[in-house]
Amino acid sequence: MQQLPREESLRLLGSVPLGRLVFTQNALPAIRPVNHVLDGENIVVRLNDGATLTSIAPPAGEAGLVVAYEADAIDPHTRLGWSVIVTGYARLVADPSQVARYEELLRPWVAQTMNGVLRIQPDLVTGFRLVAQPAVAVCAAGGEGR
Amino acid sequence: MQQLPREESLRLLGSVPLGRLVFTQNALPAIRPVNHVLDGENIVVRLNDGATLTSIAPPAGEAGLVVAYEADAIDPHTRLGWSVIVTGYARLVADPSQVARYEELLRPWVAQTMNGVLRIQPDLVTGFRLVAQPAVAVCAAGGEGR
Repeated sequence: MQQLPREESLRLLGSVPLGRLVFTQNALPAIRPVNHVLDGENIVVRLNDGATLTSIAPPAGEAGLVVAYEADAIDPHTRLGWSVIVTGYARLVADPSQVARYEELLRPWVAQTMNGVLRIQPDLVTGFRLVAQPAVAVCAAGGEGR
Repeated sequence: MQQLPREESLRLLGSVPLGRLVFTQNALPAIRPVNHVLDGENIVVRLNDGATLTSIAPPAGEAGLVVAYEADAIDPHTRLGWSVIVTGYARLVADPSQVARYEELLRPWVAQTMNGVLRIQPDLVTGFRLVAQPAVAVCAAGGEGR
C-alpha cells in the first residue's frame, strides 16, 4: 500500500465521476453515492435529497458542515487500485450563477429532481494505491498462503 | 430509480467483495474501503487499523457502535447499477474460533497485519437500482437534453 500525495490524490478523485458523500444525520453515520466534479481543489456534488442536506449544510459564508468524501477504483479481482478520502467543510452553493454553472457540469445520473449543490473544501486528503505485493499475490491466486 | 427489498439488497451486497465502512471518529465522519463477507444477514469485515476500531467498537455482548456500510456496482459510463446502504450495530468478534473462521473467509487484500474482525448486524437496509430512463439516457448520450 502506497500513500499518495495530496495533489495526486485529488487528481485521481477528479478522474472518476462517482464518489460517496459521508455525513452525520441525526447523530448517525450516513452515506450517499453521488457524482462529482472537481473545481480547483473543491469537490462539487448535486443532491436530490436537498431537504435533508439543506437542513444539515449551511449556506456559503457560514461555518459549514464537516463531511467526508470517498472515491476509489479498486479492481475486485486483482484487488489493485486506489482510494482517496477527503475530509472538509461542505457548504451549499447559494449564488444562482454558480449553481447554474455546476448544474451544467454535473449531469444528474438519476432521473430525479436535483435541488441542491454542495461544495466541499478539502482539508484532510488521504490517498493510497494498492500495488501488487508477494503476500497479496498469493492470496489473490486463491491459495491459502501457506 | 427502483427501491429494492431488504433480502435482494443484502444478496447484492454479498455478491461483491468490497464495500465502505462508515463510522464516527473523534466526532467526525470517517470512511474506509474494506472487503467483506456475508454471514447470514451479518456483514463481517477485517480491519487493519484495529487500534482505532478497537477503541470505538465494543466487544460482542456490549451495546455496539452504530456504523453504516455501503456497497455498490455502478457503471460509470451507463450510470446504471445498484447501491446498498446498511445501518446497524457493529461489534468486534471476540471468540477466537469465530475469528479464525472469518479470517479464512476474508483474505486480506492489502499486505498489512489485520488485527480485528468486526460484525455488523443490519438494522436499516436501503437498496436501490438505477435503471435506464429516458431522461437519463439523453444525459448519458452526452447531449444537453434540450
